[in-house]
Amino acid sequence: MMSLLGAPPRIVNLGLDVFAAELGRIGVPVVHTDWRPPAGGDPRLAELLGRLAAAHDRIARANAVAFDRLVNGEPALIDCRPAREALGLADRVVLHAGPPLDWTRACEPMRAAILCAIRYEGWAADDAGAQRLVERGDVRVEPCHHHGAVGPMTGMITASMPVLVVENRRFGNRAAATINEGLGKVLRFGANDASVIERLRWLAAEAGPLLGAALRTTGGIDLRTLMAQAVRMGDEMHQRNVAASSLLARALMAPLARAATDGQALARLAAFVAGNDQFYLNVAMAAGKALADPVSGVPDSTLVHVMARNGTDFGIRVSALGDRWFTAPVNMPAGLYFPGHGPDDANPDLGDSAIVETIGLGAVAMAAAPAVARFVGAGGVAESLAATAEMREIVHDEHPHFRVPALDERGTPAGIDVRRVVETGITPMINTGIASRNAGVGQIGAGVVRAPLACFTAALEALAETIR
Amino acid sequence: MMSLLGAPPRIVNLGLDVFAAELGRIGVPVVHTDWRPPAGGDPRLAELLGRLAAAHDRIARANAVAFDRLVNGEPALIDCRPAREALGLADRVVLHAGPPLDWTRACEPMRAAILCAIRYEGWAADDAGAQRLVERGDVRVEPCHHHGAVGPMTGMITASMPVLVVENRRFGNRAAATINEGLGKVLRFGANDASVIERLRWLAAEAGPLLGAALRTTGGIDLRTLMAQAVRMGDEMHQRNVAASSLLARALMAPLARAATDGQALARLAAFVAGNDQFYLNVAMAAGKALADPVSGVPDSTLVHVMARNGTDFGIRVSALGDRWFTAPVNMPAGLYFPGHGPDDANPDLGDSAIVETIGLGAVAMAAAPAVARFVGAGGVAESLAATAEMREIVHDEHPHFRVPALDERGTPAGIDVRRVVETGITPMINTGIASRNAGVGQIGAGVVRAPLACFTAALEALAETIR
Repeated sequence: MMSLLGAPPRIVNLGLDVFAAELGRIGVPVVHTDWRPPAGGDPRLAELLGRLAAAHDRIARANAVAFDRLVNGEPALIDCRPAREALGLADRVVLHAGPPLDWTRACEPMRAAILCAIRYEGWAADDAGAQRLVERGDVRVEPCHHHGAVGPMTGMITASMPVLVVENRRFGNRAAATINEGLGKVLRFGANDASVIERLRWLAAEAGPLLGAALRTTGGIDLRTLMAQAVRMGDEMHQRNVAASSLLARALMAPLARAATDGQALARLAAFVAGNDQFYLNVAMAAGKALADPVSGVPDSTLVHVMARNGTDFGIRVSALGDRWFTAPVNMPAGLYFPGHGPDDANPDLGDSAIVETIGLGAVAMAAAPAVARFVGAGGVAESLAATAEMREIVHDEHPHFRVPALDERGTPAGIDVRRVVETGITPMINTGIASRNAGVGQIGAGVVRAPLACFTAALEALAETIR
Repeated sequence: MMSLLGAPPRIVNLGLDVFAAELGRIGVPVVHTDWRPPAGGDPRLAELLGRLAAAHDRIARANAVAFDRLVNGEPALIDCRPAREALGLADRVVLHAGPPLDWTRACEPMRAAILCAIRYEGWAADDAGAQRLVERGDVRVEPCHHHGAVGPMTGMITASMPVLVVENRRFGNRAAATINEGLGKVLRFGANDASVIERLRWLAAEAGPLLGAALRTTGGIDLRTLMAQAVRMGDEMHQRNVAASSLLARALMAPLARAATDGQALARLAAFVAGNDQFYLNVAMAAGKALADPVSGVPDSTLVHVMARNGTDFGIRVSALGDRWFTAPVNMPAGLYFPGHGPDDANPDLGDSAIVETIGLGAVAMAAAPAVARFVGAGGVAESLAATAEMREIVHDEHPHFRVPALDERGTPAGIDVRRVVETGITPMINTGIASRNAGVGQIGAGVVRAPLACFTAALEALAETIR
């Protein structure tokens, strides 16, 4: 007690910063802690969190199981086949990104892409005919996630499109995504002209079959090692995939050379792969779904296993609640625009690609990729470290395999916990491309967006009902 | 004056730290500056530095010219051809790394490699016969640097070996290096068994011609862009080349596919390239020489344009002094060893690969590659930043193209200045492989080594004679 009183007071301020500011003004040293009441002081949410707190130990055990499933899966790229074969996808079905979407609520680029996909398949000759098929229900429009797949931006998948197949060898489950089309006018961003369809036909007729033949000779390419290596090389694997794309291209060279029967076809595929730094994004997404699917259905687990957007709604799925969607209106991304474009042209947030944030990559791994923070207008090294530090507040733990040299080998934050999101009010940050809100234009920029809190509060309500 | 005296004294301590330590002990805040007398207080060197200081403006202008030549060259990988064609290399000549080396002073792995290279060329049937050729002068042993080339470790080049050719398109000069053999038992580390020769024959008969045919169709691959990208991906391009190797492999895929007439030969080359994360090292070295050669011969410039080691001597060349060597005994590297090996087995420092430190990569760029600092036993993020900060003390400026995301886009230190090295006593740090001191073993580890100060003091003497 004597020693306690023998020194001047040392002051820690919690919460409102006006006290700290005032003490600072008169020269008194003060440590300010940015404390806020849980759940922003909302009594209903605080009560729900309190109910879950009573089951804390049970939830902790469940989340440990779910986290282990999420981070210790063993994804391998094993094949490339038409969606018809790989996913059992029927004709006259168009898969899209995000949670279920009624045609009447779909945004412009989503509508344009759906109609273009129908024309590509030859189910209609023009957009008007295609739209009649959709409106009559003669073409069904369903989420990729309901068919074992994920798609970037609009996320279009139809039966004849080749999809890359990832097997999670720890659990035996598979997931798929289309071949990334590259930049410029591409279907996933809502472009819909003849060049889009021509590229899709080449992918189906030449590139996909050659990739598939090569992959089937490899016995599977170990993606966990490749992705861990890419994180060490500055990829967060959402906005930046140059390392993963190059590593995969290098790994594919010899199998492609062995599988190719036509040197010119091989050269065309090689040039296509080499010309697209985002080639790996779709592989990362398929790997993400293959890793996250086994997290679904762990009783009492509050970890998120899907985040996805359809341009209208943002949806999440939570482990204990299986495949139930919790949705809220999507936010607008903030970022940098290509010349001639700006925020007024931007479509709301879009795509299944937030699966990479769900598994501990993308914006949550920004510390691995300070160049991305700069690219999306979010600052430099300090800001990239801060982004990852903030995301650490809402996850279960650090990823044991995705380790960041700039963090002295600490892992990326992984296993988003619904409780932590609601309690802190910190919503998952997502790196994203920005599509034009107008059909036929394509990508106009890149940036960062937040998942809407309302998905997580809705999920918390359901968790409090379920975990008793 | 009143305001100066109106506050308590603020203390800065220069030089000996005992004063600072004592003040710290009694609780007085003190800023300690680790000042040391120039050139370690050596009066002779201080006098030489003083003489050069009289020509400061002239030297500054010359170094600006030399620095511009060093950092703004435009290296392009244009070809792969036998050294006979690319370098005009005669039969019965063996090129080695480092400054000129008398056979009697050569270390074991260097001797083993020279004799193996002679057997590979068929100039002798066994080591004894090969050694007689060297001792009689019937085979000449000369530095790579005297023939427009560079070689890693022992640096062996003979006439039939294919070399990768880099053209500096800003100046029209060319430089070359062999194809990296991969890891394990390889000629450059002094291994010399049948497997070494078999691989060399495959490189000459199949891999080299295919690479050459592909490269000649490209019009040249821009290496400045590729290397700048690789620095952003965690390569310092001496110890770590995984990014540059992958980017180059990806860029070569389509040209190789177009050039190949035999799918199996293409597959063998692709597997070889994909299996070697250090494939790019030799390309970086050839690019380094192509970038550094134009720096030779700028009157009054004190910048270094060559650092090279032959396992016995370390040699440097300085711009104003053209191609004159300044040598001193090489140091021993310190680092980490493969299981079963240790410092007692290590050969002294070896190889032309310090050309990458000469152009602003390797250990001087450690901040770009914290994983390397860890790999060579030199710490983590803080130590990698400190290494680059220390090297900044002895260079002309920061590289305008090799920029480091972890440094918020600052460039790597480039243009080692003989004056700064002698004045500070800070010698260039070099990342290096460690060869066994015994013939036939190969690589036993990797680490860090310092250039010997005596090369720089000798060069300073000559500069003080030349610049008047």
